[in-house]
Amino acid sequence: MNTFGNILRLTTFGESHGPAMGGVIDGFPSRVIIDLAKVQAELDRRRPGASPLTSQRREPDALQLLSGVMDYDEATGELAALHAGSRKVMTLGTSIGFIIPNKDSRSSDYDELRHIYRPSHADFTFDARYGVRDWRGGGRASGRETVSRVVAGAFARQLLEQKGIAIESRIASLGGALNPGAHTIEEIVTAVRSEGDSVGGTVECRVTGVPAGTGDPVFGKLQQRLASAMMSIGGVKGFEYGMGFEGVEHRGSEVADEFAVAGNGEVVTVSNHSGGIQGGISNGMDILFRVAVKPTPTIGRPLSTVDDNLKATTLCARGRHDAAIVLRIAPVVEAMAALVILDRILMRSTNSI
Amino acid sequence: MNTFGNILRLTTFGESHGPAMGGVIDGFPSRVIIDLAKVQAELDRRRPGASPLTSQRREPDALQLLSGVMDYDEATGELAALHAGSRKVMTLGTSIGFIIPNKDSRSSDYDELRHIYRPSHADFTFDARYGVRDWRGGGRASGRETVSRVVAGAFARQLLEQKGIAIESRIASLGGALNPGAHTIEEIVTAVRSEGDSVGGTVECRVTGVPAGTGDPVFGKLQQRLASAMMSIGGVKGFEYGMGFEGVEHRGSEVADEFAVAGNGEVVTVSNHSGGIQGGISNGMDILFRVAVKPTPTIGRPLSTVDDNLKATTLCARGRHDAAIVLRIAPVVEAMAALVILDRILMRSTNSI
Amino acid sequence: MNTFGNILRLTTFGESHGPAMGGVIDGFPSRVIIDLAKVQAELDRRRPGASPLTSQRREPDALQLLSGVMDYDEATGELAALHAGSRKVMTLGTSIGFIIPNKDSRSSDYDELRHIYRPSHADFTFDARYGVRDWRGGGRASGRETVSRVVAGAFARQLLEQKGIAIESRIASLGGALNPGAHTIEEIVTAVRSEGDSVGGTVECRVTGVPAGTGDPVFGKLQQRLASAMMSIGGVKGFEYGMGFEGVEHRGSEVADEFAVAGNGEVVTVSNHSGGIQGGISNGMDILFRVAVKPTPTIGRPLSTVDDNLKATTLCARGRHDAAIVLRIAPVVEAMAALVILDRILMRSTNSI
Amino acid sequence: MNTFGNILRLTTFGESHGPAMGGVIDGFPSRVIIDLAKVQAELDRRRPGASPLTSQRREPDALQLLSGVMDYDEATGELAALHAGSRKVMTLGTSIGFIIPNKDSRSSDYDELRHIYRPSHADFTFDARYGVRDWRGGGRASGRETVSRVVAGAFARQLLEQKGIAIESRIASLGGALNPGAHTIEEIVTAVRSEGDSVGGTVECRVTGVPAGTGDPVFGKLQQRLASAMMSIGGVKGFEYGMGFEGVEHRGSEVADEFAVAGNGEVVTVSNHSGGIQGGISNGMDILFRVAVKPTPTIGRPLSTVDDNLKATTLCARGRHDAAIVLRIAPVVEAMAALVILDRILMRSTNSI
Repeated sequence: MNTFGNILRLTTFGESHGPAMGGVIDGFPSRVIIDLAKVQAELDRRRPGASPLTSQRREPDALQLLSGVMDYDEATGELAALHAGSRKVMTLGTSIGFIIPNKDSRSSDYDELRHIYRPSHADFTFDARYGVRDWRGGGRASGRETVSRVVAGAFARQLLEQKGIAIESRIASLGGALNPGAHTIEEIVTAVRSEGDSVGGTVECRVTGVPAGTGDPVFGKLQQRLASAMMSIGGVKGFEYGMGFEGVEHRGSEVADEFAVAGNGEVVTVSNHSGGIQGGISNGMDILFRVAVKPTPTIGRPLSTVDDNLKATTLCARGRHDAAIVLRIAPVVEAMAALVILDRILMRSTNSI
Repeated sequence: MNTFGNILRLTTFGESHGPAMGGVIDGFPSRVIIDLAKVQAELDRRRPGASPLTSQRREPDALQLLSGVMDYDEATGELAALHAGSRKVMTLGTSIGFIIPNKDSRSSDYDELRHIYRPSHADFTFDARYGVRDWRGGGRASGRETVSRVVAGAFARQLLEQKGIAIESRIASLGGALNPGAHTIEEIVTAVRSEGDSVGGTVECRVTGVPAGTGDPVFGKLQQRLASAMMSIGGVKGFEYGMGFEGVEHRGSEVADEFAVAGNGEVVTVSNHSGGIQGGISNGMDILFRVAVKPTPTIGRPLSTVDDNLKATTLCARGRHDAAIVLRIAPVVEAMAALVILDRILMRSTNSI
Repeated sequence: MNTFGNILRLTTFGESHGPAMGGVIDGFPSRVIIDLAKVQAELDRRRPGASPLTSQRREPDALQLLSGVMDYDEATGELAALHAGSRKVMTLGTSIGFIIPNKDSRSSDYDELRHIYRPSHADFTFDARYGVRDWRGGGRASGRETVSRVVAGAFARQLLEQKGIAIESRIASLGGALNPGAHTIEEIVTAVRSEGDSVGGTVECRVTGVPAGTGDPVFGKLQQRLASAMMSIGGVKGFEYGMGFEGVEHRGSEVADEFAVAGNGEVVTVSNHSGGIQGGISNGMDILFRVAVKPTPTIGRPLSTVDDNLKATTLCARGRHDAAIVLRIAPVVEAMAALVILDRILMRSTNSI
Repeated sequence: MNTFGNILRLTTFGESHGPAMGGVIDGFPSRVIIDLAKVQAELDRRRPGASPLTSQRREPDALQLLSGVMDYDEATGELAALHAGSRKVMTLGTSIGFIIPNKDSRSSDYDELRHIYRPSHADFTFDARYGVRDWRGGGRASGRETVSRVVAGAFARQLLEQKGIAIESRIASLGGALNPGAHTIEEIVTAVRSEGDSVGGTVECRVTGVPAGTGDPVFGKLQQRLASAMMSIGGVKGFEYGMGFEGVEHRGSEVADEFAVAGNGEVVTVSNHSGGIQGGISNGMDILFRVAVKPTPTIGRPLSTVDDNLKATTLCARGRHDAAIVLRIAPVVEAMAALVILDRILMRSTNSI
């Protein structure tokens, strides 16, 4: 199951230490101008080694577009063959294939993991599922898989922005007892890293400008698609929207979102406990949701585990890992939100012929 | 979007006050014996009016099976035509169509809602989406829609049980300041109802017996499908599994699930922060998740709103509603969990020919 | 696999001698006015017993709509509850559930078939696939299954007609040595029936008014979807469009469809060897295709066969059957064509937001 | 719509003169050994320039596997990183991404086609659909698109062969008045090419060894999936199976496939008018179907057409084209048949847990 979406569909592939990551974007509208510098900027946000705070694997994450677009010259409006220096492209309506080669894949780092299951990783479960696995760096289960989502999300985001829809996120909480208000994020991560440990956190995402009427009843609810998108990201343990888990503490009388008519004549709600979604369909208010990201399980301490002969052993994980994976998941959250919102907007367009 | 699932697919239909609710179950294995009394028992758990604690709408919720099964005589093993007194049926592998007629649909209760948007309901958003809506009792957005899910879930659950997989849920929290430990659920609901108000709550669900290796990488993760299933239920505001949102407060060093070999020779984890799922695939431990259910927004107090001419007005909702909708959502949570688990188990069977 | 279509999806259910046939139409646009008399007229065209030329099973084929529509009063434009006398309905955008009860199901006709495989029927293959089957009248494999398609097709056709798109078919050939030009269809069928035999035939279908640009490249080609739709009808043995099989007899120089500009400024082709489709996408000319329908295999002569204990036996099929099933397949061909064309038109609407 | 299949899904991308063709195979079982030399051999069969009879475009069609497999050492049974010299690989169960770079893309050949619609090609319809197109060599509508299908089909075929299922095809007819029996295929093509013309033909495909019980009722019929697969190939104008169009000339009494029990105790039919499929499900006999391939429309003679300003003009197509495209379509027919058969076999495996 490597495809996501109904109308706008992303299919991805790639193992962490194989030749390349990549994907195919299908159903993307034609004649959309995409600024490749903005796509690369999203990739850079997610990239390991981009900040001293994240994993030190060095990947240029250089996107290679293979189809579905042509070079677009803004000055003349002319199309031409894609080339190394293409800065803007126009979509053709056909499937957009792309790869991101894996460069810094120091596979030998992983030789000792060939037969040992890392606790709280997917090594054991992949073996149980498939009877075989690529043991290098998590293989298909690596967080590196998300690089393909960021590419597709960057395409979707640009089209949404052209329609006045914006997606932004922030780190809403970070790490155990530490308070992200009292300490900077950098201070927290540096401290945790120095202890050889890791912390979890929460990402809050806000989508503004989505017109009322986006989303579908029953099994195409906006919150359902957002939850599906977010829970498909490795390391995400929870999803909530609007008042979320906190809302269960309240009475019904406290949380009704009363309607009013704004100055511009549009229907608004005077509060937003609903997180911009009612009955699975947007009501025109900001869409607000949060995801919980666990602390990355790989740390430099010995842990009990078993090998693939079911013999008990001890593992002291090494390799290059993140002290706060939540920092790198934030751009993935935005990318997946962009895919969901655009998919539902395109679906809505099928209500008339 | 009225279909859920990949291999096992449920398609549903029905407006709250139309002639009937119903659905089609497709992809259900053949030659499975289904006890119809158990299906009806699940319907009864969800039914309004079944308990003094829930909505007083009186619906017999009588299931009519229309296809995909034949009467099965346990004594002889013989098949025969479905009839009114059929107690056990055998599935044929073909699509299973069913309806549950709507009986107690006092539509006139809803006349005043024909042009007015109830706050925190789907009236406004359905109009925004489709330009028309069935105003009676929420129409397609009514919680009554879940009756079809319970039927399908009851079929799936029986097959799972025959394979040693069990699904159970409990109300993990209920209502604002009240503590479900100190007061019985009945006390809380009775108190809230007497005030004309409603409370939210949390359902915790546990699935035992799922073999390791169930679920799929990337976009078919078990937690993703569970989240999608749960967030498709009206009134659910959040989903978490394993350590969930609470886990973000911990260090990575505290939450690793170390592996060991159990006495029976199976791999187990000594803790279960992962909630039975690693990399989207079950590891053989109990699968544990929670959903947050909001307090139902319909209460007997006047609220500001607008009508479909965008004129401000006031609404004092009446009708028959639940003081704690979470009580009736619990069986729906179990039903959807059964559909997800069976769907993923069937998907896994495609790994060999 | 009981669902057809991408955006407009039909899911069907029902065994020939079970309680009812039925289906769910999902993705149908909202606010479309449907004349129920026209739907019934399509059902009547397909109905057994409707003509002295076809099977004498007597089914009223009375459609019961269960959801997704409300009664529409043309005079006032008002919606109301569906009722027995509803003549026009408006679609709500939600899933449209419907059933057609099976009335004249003389199951005892089929008792002798409980353990015997009829030659050229699906009895043996259903047993091989599912290990069980409903032996009465073909069960799920009965041609009666197509009644649900006709309902959905009648909905789609009405929307298409409102947009200027028409679908019509004709019997292009009928039966062995007989020539449908020299004899009337009635003469041929009467003669064949009197011999206790059956004949095959060819249906030609023409779709006019489809705008250029409908259909999708590669795996969503218009001819592919039409072929898939037609070959899903029991008894259909072949599909061709445009010049079809006959075209392989020609040189490339003879069959190019040269372009010209019509008086109204539209691009036209001066011939139509392409059958209105180029590269899987409509070019604005008439869409033309043909399907081959086999002679129904049930005839009143003894045939060698085996039973479900794999013992050789002889069967002289009785029951109520068609001497020229092609006559009743024609309305099904039109219905399926309507579903395909509307599905592709709706898909095309997703190319812009 | 660039994805084909239910369980086994192929998603493709690539324009004829873009950087690369490629695809993603999803749902392929794990632990299957694939001989890359056999994959390349299938690519070579389809390749232009491989024979003096086909188009002289020179493409090495060198497959680059990017994911989903690892190098497999037959001697040791060990997995290792994919490398340039990998000869056998083992599938991992994860998505298999691959590309075939486009090398010999003499785009300037196509400059004159930038604004002119070639008759009987997809230039006009792509513009109508998307408002833009890659004019070079047909872009996405090029026959070169099928190279990705051949890769996926070669994977599927190897797994089928390991299970005793074989797929073979032959040219059943070729070209206008010429008789493929009287002349060799080479003689016909050479003669037609020397006249600057092209011929159509018919491919007959036979699948042996498919176990009875493969395929699904109603909308997953084996003949439906085969028809869908074949009609998705550019240039294919018709599909028929078993007795096909010819069968409509016969009486029902002549075409019943009587059952018998073979020496090995298996049920067989004594004739095969059904083409190995009854009710959409295989009966264990050979599966037999035929496709009609049109003569390629590009020939060296002036044709009337219009440009994208809707001005009449004349075009004398040049470039590198095939005198009998049917020869190169045969391996694509086999590849698509392999995908369909494997997909339905995998689907069948979901009937038990």
